[in-house]
Amino acid sequence: MLLSNTARQAPPAYPASGVLPSAVQPHLAEFERFLASQVDDFEPHMRELVRYILANHGKRIRPTLVFGSGWTDDGRIRPDLVHAAAIVELIHLATLVHDDVLDGAALRHQLPTASRKYGASVAVLLGDTLLTQALKIASDYFTIEVCRAMALATRRVCEGEIHQTLERGNSRFSVDEYFEVIALKTGELFSVSCLLGAQVAGHPAEYVNVVSRFGLQLGIAYQLYDDLADFCGDENQIGKTLGTDLASGKFTLPLLYLIERLPETEAAVLRRDVLAGLATIKDLTVRMNKHGVLVAVRERFEVELRLGEDALADWGHLPSTTRLLELAAYVRGQAGRLLG
Amino acid sequence: MLLSNTARQAPPAYPASGVLPSAVQPHLAEFERFLASQVDDFEPHMRELVRYILANHGKRIRPTLVFGSGWTDDGRIRPDLVHAAAIVELIHLATLVHDDVLDGAALRHQLPTASRKYGASVAVLLGDTLLTQALKIASDYFTIEVCRAMALATRRVCEGEIHQTLERGNSRFSVDEYFEVIALKTGELFSVSCLLGAQVAGHPAEYVNVVSRFGLQLGIAYQLYDDLADFCGDENQIGKTLGTDLASGKFTLPLLYLIERLPETEAAVLRRDVLAGLATIKDLTVRMNKHGVLVAVRERFEVELRLGEDALADWGHLPSTTRLLELAAYVRGQAGRLLG
Repeated sequence: MLLSNTARQAPPAYPASGVLPSAVQPHLAEFERFLASQVDDFEPHMRELVRYILANHGKRIRPTLVFGSGWTDDGRIRPDLVHAAAIVELIHLATLVHDDVLDGAALRHQLPTASRKYGASVAVLLGDTLLTQALKIASDYFTIEVCRAMALATRRVCEGEIHQTLERGNSRFSVDEYFEVIALKTGELFSVSCLLGAQVAGHPAEYVNVVSRFGLQLGIAYQLYDDLADFCGDENQIGKTLGTDLASGKFTLPLLYLIERLPETEAAVLRRDVLAGLATIKDLTVRMNKHGVLVAVRERFEVELRLGEDALADWGHLPSTTRLLELAAYVRGQAGRLLG
Repeated sequence: MLLSNTARQAPPAYPASGVLPSAVQPHLAEFERFLASQVDDFEPHMRELVRYILANHGKRIRPTLVFGSGWTDDGRIRPDLVHAAAIVELIHLATLVHDDVLDGAALRHQLPTASRKYGASVAVLLGDTLLTQALKIASDYFTIEVCRAMALATRRVCEGEIHQTLERGNSRFSVDEYFEVIALKTGELFSVSCLLGAQVAGHPAEYVNVVSRFGLQLGIAYQLYDDLADFCGDENQIGKTLGTDLASGKFTLPLLYLIERLPETEAAVLRRDVLAGLATIKDLTVRMNKHGVLVAVRERFEVELRLGEDALADWGHLPSTTRLLELAAYVRGQAGRLLG
């Protein structure tokens, strides 16, 4: 707990905020136009399906990361950044479509998942087409670097997901393994979003490394927030059912921290209850509160996020750094709202 | 039936053969080594899974197409062709892993499918990692063309699969739609295999177009053979259970031809029986024989294959053309064995 104590002592590098950076809104609007235009590139029988996936979306954090890390003084909208934003978002949407198949999820952002609406078979294939469309857009750059970075990042995202899936129901899953998994399944795509933005905008190589590191940390922090929200979020606000990780036997950080803090016999009972599907969110949340688990996760979130912000410390003179710190503040604000 | 009559009159451009071109065997051996070396590129927890998929393989027709179309006078083994062969095979294996999830298939080449062995969730993600690994290898070329061609071809393969899946259980599925589907789901990958081989080997642009056309036709013919084998193949030889297409409500050419040849009332009963799962392979094969369906499919196979061979007519002086015609002869031999 040394790290989280350190985090508690210092004020946040950038104060919490509830809104995405407003400067990128025109860029996101252009991104939406470009993304919607992709529909026509598909075979006619595919277009309704692709349109459905593109329309039911989240906060577009990854595209915002691309625009943020690729920000330059004039703040103008650059088509190459718009394309990069579309690539990372399509990959993200593809993984969500596949995730919903794996989890048998019924709803995503309050609407039926592709798997529920079109069947699991179509959803698997639809995910594949979104993924390959992303790589097709990536191959329109004059440099092969975009393809290479995206193919590797996507593979690593899936490797993280597989690791987690193989460990479902393993009650001896460790905190270290948990962090390995989330660095891959969430950190990689946040990181490559920053990498692409900075690279496409022509930022120096050292800065490209720095923003990649920032992205990785922001992704880890974001996943901590997301996993915490599965226990104590507001269903309407997060747009999905609470307890889905628990129900699928995923040992996420709040649960791992609770197990760590319980006496051994009580921990053994809890492990068994989780595997038997007997643990309830309500009971767990009460116990997590009692044992300071929610606060500890929140502190760990702050530590991870701060590591990302610290990576940018020497680059405050670049306007892109301001955009990225605004985004970190937004994610901090989201997490803050969870615990009131 | 005009086309198939024409096909019957002329002898095959290249006689049927039961074996793959022997000249490419050393190239395939090198390809196997390179493919096996990919395992180490994955995260440690992935390696057993990837090794399992790579070891349980078919005839490596697509890699053979790459080596055939990229053949040059000296017949030497070129690493860039070996890599191209690995790319197309990984994409193919990824689609098979996903197909087996969709079909709930238990066996592939006599061994448990990934879906059966590791569960559907892992299999979906495993397919994703194979697909992205293919595109990662594609991004190691100095030109972006390989990535672009592969991303587009893969998307189109999946679009063909989705079209077929959406039409499962549609007894009004037409012969034209069937050909649209198989041109995408099988023709595309055969075609891009030829395209890559010829392009990487530096063959003239006109020849690249010609071999792409040849590959498309070979793919269509191969799928006709495969769909015929689902009715009258030898389970041990083709390595899967007969009637899986029928059981999943896929109206393939043999069934569509039978429906065309039956009186309207009998056709209506058959359509209903297929949808209700009441049609049996044994009964259908007897009726297909009686109505000349198997011969008609075999003739259509010959027409499609011949169109491919004809595309190469002006290029007989290139040694790669010889390799490709040997491969066409192999596929012709496979189809010939089906009907005795």
